[in-house]
Amino acid sequence: MAGDPNPRLERQLDYLMAIEPLKRVDRRSPVLETDRRENSAEHSWHVALAAWLLAEHSDEPVDAAKVMLMMLLHDLGEVDAGDVFVYDADARAQHHEQERAGIERLAAILPDDQGAAMRALWHEFEDGDTPEARFARALDRLQPMLLNYASEGAAWKEHGIREEQVVAVNSVIAEGSGTLWARARRLISDAVRKGFIRD
Amino acid sequence: MAGDPNPRLERQLDYLMAIEPLKRVDRRSPVLETDRRENSAEHSWHVALAAWLLAEHSDEPVDAAKVMLMMLLHDLGEVDAGDVFVYDADARAQHHEQERAGIERLAAILPDDQGAAMRALWHEFEDGDTPEARFARALDRLQPMLLNYASEGAAWKEHGIREEQVVAVNSVIAEGSGTLWARARRLISDAVRKGFIRD
Repeated sequence: MAGDPNPRLERQLDYLMAIEPLKRVDRRSPVLETDRRENSAEHSWHVALAAWLLAEHSDEPVDAAKVMLMMLLHDLGEVDAGDVFVYDADARAQHHEQERAGIERLAAILPDDQGAAMRALWHEFEDGDTPEARFARALDRLQPMLLNYASEGAAWKEHGIREEQVVAVNSVIAEGSGTLWARARRLISDAVRKGFIRD
Repeated sequence: MAGDPNPRLERQLDYLMAIEPLKRVDRRSPVLETDRRENSAEHSWHVALAAWLLAEHSDEPVDAAKVMLMMLLHDLGEVDAGDVFVYDADARAQHHEQERAGIERLAAILPDDQGAAMRALWHEFEDGDTPEARFARALDRLQPMLLNYASEGAAWKEHGIREEQVVAVNSVIAEGSGTLWARARRLISDAVRKGFIRD
């Protein structure tokens, strides 16, 4: 707004409004007991809380607060790029570049120090080369599996997903947490037996 | 699930599913460029990121990670109690007790240590007696004002809210941050001048 005495605060508030459209980016996972899908803001809230809740199951010690913030930020590239289904490998390849560009646009709105921090956390998540990023990526895969299981396979059935695809796409969980991956494998086996996933 | 070797993990996953309905609790604030309202999960995501972004504006030093977690948890009482409009004073009084009961139900799902931590953070937020809680309560009020302003007063107009109500309800921002309250006062003045709020 005009005549403002605090340009740093104005940039921060502009950023808060610039990320708001994440609430309009729909994913494939269902919101339980509704006929709508989860959006990326809701997903980010859910996995950020999961970071606090499940940090003890990381194979390597992690800074839980850093994982929490990483989860809050990890989908912000979708404000410009939209979401791509995790089982759509072709779309995912070019999607990364669109997300990266979106992150640059958003980071430029922020004060330089915070823009750099946000950009660094997003790349750390994407690269998956630190304990926090490995664990964050595990949570990002586990949460949709829990929702799909609880909805008797909503997105899996709709897209005819097979067991080998579920195992391949979600095996990244094993890089962050053997405990969570063992649990996910049991969930997959149960889901196949119940007909939520094609074998 | 049956035959599980890790009861602690099962309680944590049960909790993740038990809080999922927060995505179905609608608030009064709009999601911009849509005709729907924000739900409490989206709101919690937005204010948790705001905690990281704006912590430097707290009047007292705060642990930003603690504020972030407080924001992720602060509305969980609504899973059972639903949301109540901030300008509806009568409903708010009895609502607190319903939320408290909801928090007890959810905390009991968690392992004891985490249930106690969640309960304590929720009460700290409600009581507003620590620097983190004062700042968290400021963010909880500032974010809907930003959305209402950006939507040319959507919720304010719909409910015929007057300037004195907006100032009274949001003056809690001043307890956490003089900087944010000064900014909010300017936003209110602009909103009155533009006809978004009745004077």
